[in-house]
Amino acid sequence: MNLDAVYSELTLKTPAKLALVVLDGLGDLATPEQNHLTPLEAARTPNLDALARQSAQGRMIPVAPGITPGSGPGHLALFGYDPVEFQVGRGVIEALGLGVELKPGDVCARANFATLDARGIVTDRRAGRIPTETCERLCALLASKIKKIGDTQVLIKAGKEHRFVVVFRGRGLEGPVTDADPNREGLPIPPVKPRDARNAKQKKTARLVAEFYKLALPLLAKEKPANGFLMRGIAHQPAIPTFEARYQLRAACLAIYPMYKGLAQLVGMTKLEGPQTLAEQFERYLAEFDRFDFFFIHHKATDKAGEDGNFEAKKKAIEEFDAALPILLRKKPDVLVVTGDHSTPCAVRGHSWHPQPVLLHSAVSGSDKLDRFTETTANCGSLGVFEAKYLIRLMQANARMFDKFGA
Amino acid sequence: MNLDAVYSELTLKTPAKLALVVLDGLGDLATPEQNHLTPLEAARTPNLDALARQSAQGRMIPVAPGITPGSGPGHLALFGYDPVEFQVGRGVIEALGLGVELKPGDVCARANFATLDARGIVTDRRAGRIPTETCERLCALLASKIKKIGDTQVLIKAGKEHRFVVVFRGRGLEGPVTDADPNREGLPIPPVKPRDARNAKQKKTARLVAEFYKLALPLLAKEKPANGFLMRGIAHQPAIPTFEARYQLRAACLAIYPMYKGLAQLVGMTKLEGPQTLAEQFERYLAEFDRFDFFFIHHKATDKAGEDGNFEAKKKAIEEFDAALPILLRKKPDVLVVTGDHSTPCAVRGHSWHPQPVLLHSAVSGSDKLDRFTETTANCGSLGVFEAKYLIRLMQANARMFDKFGA
Repeated sequence: MNLDAVYSELTLKTPAKLALVVLDGLGDLATPEQNHLTPLEAARTPNLDALARQSAQGRMIPVAPGITPGSGPGHLALFGYDPVEFQVGRGVIEALGLGVELKPGDVCARANFATLDARGIVTDRRAGRIPTETCERLCALLASKIKKIGDTQVLIKAGKEHRFVVVFRGRGLEGPVTDADPNREGLPIPPVKPRDARNAKQKKTARLVAEFYKLALPLLAKEKPANGFLMRGIAHQPAIPTFEARYQLRAACLAIYPMYKGLAQLVGMTKLEGPQTLAEQFERYLAEFDRFDFFFIHHKATDKAGEDGNFEAKKKAIEEFDAALPILLRKKPDVLVVTGDHSTPCAVRGHSWHPQPVLLHSAVSGSDKLDRFTETTANCGSLGVFEAKYLIRLMQANARMFDKFGA
Repeated sequence: MNLDAVYSELTLKTPAKLALVVLDGLGDLATPEQNHLTPLEAARTPNLDALARQSAQGRMIPVAPGITPGSGPGHLALFGYDPVEFQVGRGVIEALGLGVELKPGDVCARANFATLDARGIVTDRRAGRIPTETCERLCALLASKIKKIGDTQVLIKAGKEHRFVVVFRGRGLEGPVTDADPNREGLPIPPVKPRDARNAKQKKTARLVAEFYKLALPLLAKEKPANGFLMRGIAHQPAIPTFEARYQLRAACLAIYPMYKGLAQLVGMTKLEGPQTLAEQFERYLAEFDRFDFFFIHHKATDKAGEDGNFEAKKKAIEEFDAALPILLRKKPDVLVVTGDHSTPCAVRGHSWHPQPVLLHSAVSGSDKLDRFTETTANCGSLGVFEAKYLIRLMQANARMFDKFGA
């Protein structure tokens, strides 16, 4: 019997309210340049400190030791889905990031406008990074001319600069298929092939991509420099059991950026639109308190600052959270978790594999007797270092949602 | 998709240099007899202390909770090979320990000289622990008379006292086969059988062992007390993917004892011969810095002292390492790990299951703000308690050898 089946069998429905606050990219590294402090250590966080004194702490491995996750696997793991088992193609993530409302089975591709020479050789994989406005014009052109291929609907959405996504929506489609991208200049665009030669749905997808090229390339022939395009990460939205089916929790998503709304939607959370700041997200949480059992509240600014290597901005983003925290605590959830989806250390200027700190508070979380919540205190917490995919299970336990296992 | 495949797909080749310093049997226990200090705590280690302040720490489970590894599984785990999946027969380990240059497919057996009565009943499984010189004389006698059996080459090498190894080198051989050892006195030597009755190669090995007994026993018939012998752990050297194939790292081994050189050779590391002290090993590391990406540097004295229950000697072995450390740091590797292959607590006088402390230093290891590197500080490190088989993956991450997983 697998562990998920055990958890399912033990699950009891309770009136408990659970809240997961994700400070994206929260974890960081202490470096001599910053006085051996992390942004979380350097930040003034009186409200979080008070919470820390009554909470359990630990650190979470987002995927597996040493693996740096993208936002997709990072959040799937947080939502309790093994990110190695549930892999979501880059096309799907990109489409979610652009706010495309995907349906199960949709096949998505990341696409780049590119420059081709007269013989079809790729001479610039990014078409000189054309301005976003040009990209939008070209996408509108393609979208106006190519709405359907056979019985398959085609959706095209512009991103930033040379980037866009193509979504194929129809029956009998499946990914992954190989990339329509030579991955370097000087070569032609390779024809797309099914990853599994015996998979009829992948074959249909490959034919569809070929057909799309046949229709689209002539439309761009006179454009300069974007007279071609490449497609990568072509795969369908995988079937993922819903959050509610898995945990018996009606879940709401309070995120501002499309990517995180999309990831929440992927597991069937209800998106609550509107809030534009963390304070507004917390206010909305108060307003929706009775309608849902679980709230996923996403704060992007920490990750952004880490990506920019901006220590002060990351510290400020944490202080912004701390200042807003009392709003959330007006209706204290039965189980409250504060963590990240991964670390984004300023010194790395990007996501990393370092386990992110996690704080868990409930009436039965106990206290680890730590005066603050930081990377260093979290190392000494009762939760230890564990895989992120177990977080929701720990939250459920703290919500008293699990019956005893065995007599 | 398995995790190794994920790691492989993410691996990037980089110019980074990685060094793994193994203080064999490093971990220990604090006992009242030693003032509640471990040898690592009692030792004066200014250089290691300085490193600790800029490093991450944790503890490693060598195989699985509660399992005490031999040197074979201990090192295979350190090298990142699951020691339960990659089991190496005791014959192979013994042959490696005696410095036999094994080839893939060689079948090896641990052997003991023993005493038999007139009816072939084992009356002393160790032949009264004959002196090593007698063992050497008898091995030379057997080796001079039995060089080949059919097309199979036979190699015989003496060990200490009653111990020796027999290696069968030829085509179509495979282990494991059952032991030619009743495991207690008062019984005859049982005939060897294939572990898998349908395995033709194991059958051939079993016939070969029977033939070897037929040739060897008459040669010993007049000896006293060693007129017979037992054979155990009869198996072939398993096919193990090389370290370089697995990690994209050209690896060198700087070990002094044959067993560790053999284990490194098993995974395809290049043995660098010559050095007789840790200082010389570090000097050689400097000299070979450009030729390899990964250095495995093995220090035996810590384990030996632990096995002897000699606290002072273990402390001294650690201080010897600390004194030599500045040599290594003259060309600081991008990623440096200091750990053991397992604990060998003085109070246990042998290997144990207690997780060994591990220190990891790199530009992105962060600092756990711990002033020293000991069993107790390691308990509060950011690496947590993890399985040794993930160590190389963490080293690769710190060497920035992994691409991001997912978008």
